Amino acid sequence: MQKLDIPTFDWPKADFPELKYPLHEHQRENEAEETRCLAMAEEIFHEQKKQKPIAAVIIEPILAEGGDCHASPDFFNKLRNIVAKNDAYFIVDEVQTGVISTGTFWAHESWNLDQPPDYVTFAKKMQIGGFYYNDGYTPYEKNRIQSTWNGDPAKLLMIKEILKVIENEHLVENVRDAGQVLLNGLKQLQEKFPQYISAARGQGGFCAIDLPDTTARDSFVNQLRSSGLVTGGSGFTSVRFRPSLICTKHHVQIALEIMESQLKKL
Amino acid sequence: MQKLDIPTFDWPKADFPELKYPLHEHQRENEAEETRCLAMAEEIFHEQKKQKPIAAVIIEPILAEGGDCHASPDFFNKLRNIVAKNDAYFIVDEVQTGVISTGTFWAHESWNLDQPPDYVTFAKKMQIGGFYYNDGYTPYEKNRIQSTWNGDPAKLLMIKEILKVIENEHLVENVRDAGQVLLNGLKQLQEKFPQYISAARGQGGFCAIDLPDTTARDSFVNQLRSSGLVTGGSGFTSVRFRPSLICTKHHVQIALEIMESQLKKL
Repeated sequence: MQKLDIPTFDWPKADFPELKYPLHEHQRENEAEETRCLAMAEEIFHEQKKQKPIAAVIIEPILAEGGDCHASPDFFNKLRNIVAKNDAYFIVDEVQTGVISTGTFWAHESWNLDQPPDYVTFAKKMQIGGFYYNDGYTPYEKNRIQSTWNGDPAKLLMIKEILKVIENEHLVENVRDAGQVLLNGLKQLQEKFPQYISAARGQGGFCAIDLPDTTARDSFVNQLRSSGLVTGGSGFTSVRFRPSLICTKHHVQIALEIMESQLKKL
Repeated sequence: MQKLDIPTFDWPKADFPELKYPLHEHQRENEAEETRCLAMAEEIFHEQKKQKPIAAVIIEPILAEGGDCHASPDFFNKLRNIVAKNDAYFIVDEVQTGVISTGTFWAHESWNLDQPPDYVTFAKKMQIGGFYYNDGYTPYEKNRIQSTWNGDPAKLLMIKEILKVIENEHLVENVRDAGQVLLNGLKQLQEKFPQYISAARGQGGFCAIDLPDTTARDSFVNQLRSSGLVTGGSGFTSVRFRPSLICTKHHVQIALEIMESQLKKL
């Protein structure tokens, strides 16, 4: 809806892997799917060299709005190396995944990359939108990159305090613990209610499940909201969970109980 | 510099009037210049109708980065009516001029427009970037206009406090008084040092002078900074003054003394 009437850039897109769940039951298929997507990326680099060479590749660690699609660390590492081989920049969009949501400060930390990203974009929990970049990428000329608020010092004070709270209250551990309970709980619900719930998946607190179709998904999200549990839709059939960093195992248990009692009513 | 390598939109531009100063000595020329610019705007509307009709006209009340160019209220009113006649939107960009800088809350308040702008954009002193719009322009579909921070409530609290201070400390009157002293002072300096300074102009605290060329301008700005007075360049030869809302007549006097003592050294 946000893109209605707004022209998009004429940029090529490579497919993002569509993995099958549970992962351990579809290992070979999923590997083949990731190999297909990497080959597509290489093909696009090759094709574009003739007309408009690719300057950079931008990727989300988890396709968020796109339906909570995950890929393996190996996929990201191979993609990163393809990008480097083609003299392009590798930009990781951590706007949704950044700041502990997936159990590490940045989601890409869990990939064990052979070489780090060239740029990492952030926003949301970081309080301001911005990006990190590697040494040597500072523009030669001053004022090439500038904004009205020049980094917005008031927001920097806020994120400084937030980082202190994250450290003092051990929120990284909290997200990992709560996320583990959430994902296990979702998998149990999926076993109990296979007619409604599938593809339970997640990293840290960044979890999702699929429902049979968009109508069922939307009605489930509304049902949960009426029972005191706020979730969101992503993609066409997914319910996404984005617990705050201070959401504990205790809160997750309450959430799982609400879901179970609503699923029993279906 | 900020636009280097960044493709610009394929939008037509009408000339902004280049007025001659002092205004009262060039009344007829300046009227002719504004008429020329209005005719150019009408011509562009006419030409574009054949290919890509104009959806909206966006204009700054004072061209800021462009060199502190002013125009008469009559010019803006006539332009606004031309835009309405052509079924386009009239967008006033008050990012730099907004929030009392020119002696009224919005600069366009001083124009006595026959009909108000369709949109007014703001940022800087408003703490967040955004826009006001007329009744009836709310998009039909929800989520057409959305951002990560949905208006950024923390910043709204800040602007609320700022507005209280503006009212309680009578800062509108302060800007008008201090601005008057600044503009009169600049005119006196221009009479005393006509070889260096010309085109003293301003509205509220939003004042500027011209120097003979870019080199002279840059060196004067640096000289002032070394003497404790921060100004900025705008356009190729202008020095711009953007006193804060709490800058009083007393502060302006100090600024004028610094300028005079530096001009004597030239």
